[in-house]
Amino acid sequence: MLVEDALRLIEVRGGLGAVPGVRLAGVHAGIKPRKRDLALIAFDSAQACAAVTTTNEVKAAPVLVSAEHLALEGGAMRAVACNSGCANACTGERGDRDARATARQAAALLGVAPEQVIVASTGVIGVPLPMDRVQRGIERAHAQLEGGVKASHDAAEAIMTTDRVPKLSAYAYYVDGKKYVVGGIAKGSGMIAPNMATMLAFIATDYPMNAAALQRTLASAADESFNMISVDGDMSTNDAVYAFAPAHEQDAPTAFARALRAVCLDLARAMVADGEGATKRLTVHVTSATSTAQARTIARAVINSSLVKTALYGEDPNWGRIIAAAGAARAGLHPTAWSLSVNGTPWVAAGAVELLSEAEAHRELEESEIVVGLDLGLGEASATGWGCDLSKDYVRINASYRT
Amino acid sequence: MLVEDALRLIEVRGGLGAVPGVRLAGVHAGIKPRKRDLALIAFDSAQACAAVTTTNEVKAAPVLVSAEHLALEGGAMRAVACNSGCANACTGERGDRDARATARQAAALLGVAPEQVIVASTGVIGVPLPMDRVQRGIERAHAQLEGGVKASHDAAEAIMTTDRVPKLSAYAYYVDGKKYVVGGIAKGSGMIAPNMATMLAFIATDYPMNAAALQRTLASAADESFNMISVDGDMSTNDAVYAFAPAHEQDAPTAFARALRAVCLDLARAMVADGEGATKRLTVHVTSATSTAQARTIARAVINSSLVKTALYGEDPNWGRIIAAAGAARAGLHPTAWSLSVNGTPWVAAGAVELLSEAEAHRELEESEIVVGLDLGLGEASATGWGCDLSKDYVRINASYRT
Repeated sequence: MLVEDALRLIEVRGGLGAVPGVRLAGVHAGIKPRKRDLALIAFDSAQACAAVTTTNEVKAAPVLVSAEHLALEGGAMRAVACNSGCANACTGERGDRDARATARQAAALLGVAPEQVIVASTGVIGVPLPMDRVQRGIERAHAQLEGGVKASHDAAEAIMTTDRVPKLSAYAYYVDGKKYVVGGIAKGSGMIAPNMATMLAFIATDYPMNAAALQRTLASAADESFNMISVDGDMSTNDAVYAFAPAHEQDAPTAFARALRAVCLDLARAMVADGEGATKRLTVHVTSATSTAQARTIARAVINSSLVKTALYGEDPNWGRIIAAAGAARAGLHPTAWSLSVNGTPWVAAGAVELLSEAEAHRELEESEIVVGLDLGLGEASATGWGCDLSKDYVRINASYRT
Repeated sequence: MLVEDALRLIEVRGGLGAVPGVRLAGVHAGIKPRKRDLALIAFDSAQACAAVTTTNEVKAAPVLVSAEHLALEGGAMRAVACNSGCANACTGERGDRDARATARQAAALLGVAPEQVIVASTGVIGVPLPMDRVQRGIERAHAQLEGGVKASHDAAEAIMTTDRVPKLSAYAYYVDGKKYVVGGIAKGSGMIAPNMATMLAFIATDYPMNAAALQRTLASAADESFNMISVDGDMSTNDAVYAFAPAHEQDAPTAFARALRAVCLDLARAMVADGEGATKRLTVHVTSATSTAQARTIARAVINSSLVKTALYGEDPNWGRIIAAAGAARAGLHPTAWSLSVNGTPWVAAGAVELLSEAEAHRELEESEIVVGLDLGLGEASATGWGCDLSKDYVRINASYRT
């Protein structure tokens, strides 16, 4: 029965709110005009916590403060407080104080220690948090904490910046015949790039496990999902994915690893689909690579290329840009061993031979979902990356983010 | 008198055509509709030749064939044949044959060996050269070879792709009281990035020297100029800078190094100013770095950031994007030691303190030339990078390059 259990994976509604023992809320605190801008997440029991955060050398205050809390209470976290509308990055000592005050206030309301609270912020860099509003928002959110779809949707909305839609995903999985749930909420639509660019995700499950096992499982799932998407190649100061599970000595089961991966993939692909100004989704499957690392590097290089993205936007079958981007990655591409397909139709073979006419290829690119298959002709490893096109709207959105 | 000589540097008209012993032409061969698309450059004597070419693993046929010729005749080159409108990249064996045939034809007309000819192409990838037109163009160009401003201008025009203006630069310099000239032509306006992305430059001087000295001097000048510009972070299959000087045993004098650097800087900055869709020029001076390598890495990261570029386009004083890009380079930025200025006015100090109001900073960004000073507060090294903004027109141009 164990093997069969490990394969049962059922998508459920409600994202993070579908996980037993999780209560949450998303409210309008007034950091942004009109929209929800503050989310509070509370766990009924002490949680093992894992984190994958930005590798940017400039880290926002909440990222640093949360890392400190994790080091102290990583096996016993109880809550997350997250605001949008202000990144609390490059805000000096004041930013540090504000992040700590946020954790302290949430902790006081929940009757836990400040170090048991993860804090997160997303929005404009270099502007201090309006603490009166944050505090009012936390009070309001605390009064509304509950499980379920509605609360989860509100919290997902409250962490959005330029996102057009809230992002939620949850799956039921089975261990020894017992049903568990892993669910999450995420934000991110611009400034998204490999290696954890501007995105936040909060994920939890009700299967108890230890923090080291959770960390290992999260890191592996993030490598295949959040680290394989790109909207514009930039990397933020605030990116963080946090995962929670009731604290216990036991290891993470395979079924959980599969379910967590499914949640991470759903959330990552939702970010790409919501890419700022995106009109098309791009999936790049790199196959026949010598190693997974090579396949990932090349897939990322293609989804990161501004020239590939603009050609996609223009439905221009300019495959040379794809291969120029792959070659520029200097990951060991053999210049004549590769072949290229689009949406399953062979396009270019042996590094030079066009198999589709320009008109045929152009018709393929009229689809809104484009899957580029790049066979390196070298080995047996593979990887997949997800991106989107670069449109005039991307420029419009990013030229006027603050004004 | 020698020291004084080494400092005399006089800008002259005519670019490559200003160099004694150089004859050139730019003609319409019919590879592109209407515009000039083929340039021929002939040297009156055997030339030492130096090259800095693309590091892309997918190299165009002319890059590979020219590397072969350089290995054989690097001390005795006699001509360059360059077309625009077709990159002759990813064209397989046919591409190799076509590049060799181009060199052979130019050599026959000039009475030199095919291996004494450098070939270069720029344009769309994956399309074979229309050899009948190339050959007709070479004949026509050969009949028009001459020195001077007009011919140089024609040749500079013939190597353009999406460039709006031809790019020429030349300086007179003095060695032991005798006047010499170094001059060049270049193309590049999109797909330009650090490490030699889509650009071509042909530079020559009349001071005789050996190929090794020329190579060393060119590599150093390219590191400070062509490798420090970015339009969109992509890297092409065809990039190449070639420099020529009459073959001789002697070394390259300091005055030549200074003049060559001036030519390279002029050409590189002309490319950035002509960046596809650019409305503003961005100069990033990184100072107080621990090493030149660190300063260059950070300057390049800032000029490469899509978010910095779009903020610049929107005149949005979102300095957080500059510092997020610098931090993402992971080159050792200290998160609170840096300070930022714009057009000489202090903007942010100690990693957090805003010295200009948003309105004041916005006014600075209304200028068409923006100089960002990023003081890392660490050491004594510095570097400068040049870029431009990312506009809706960049997307328009690149979405419809072929259609």
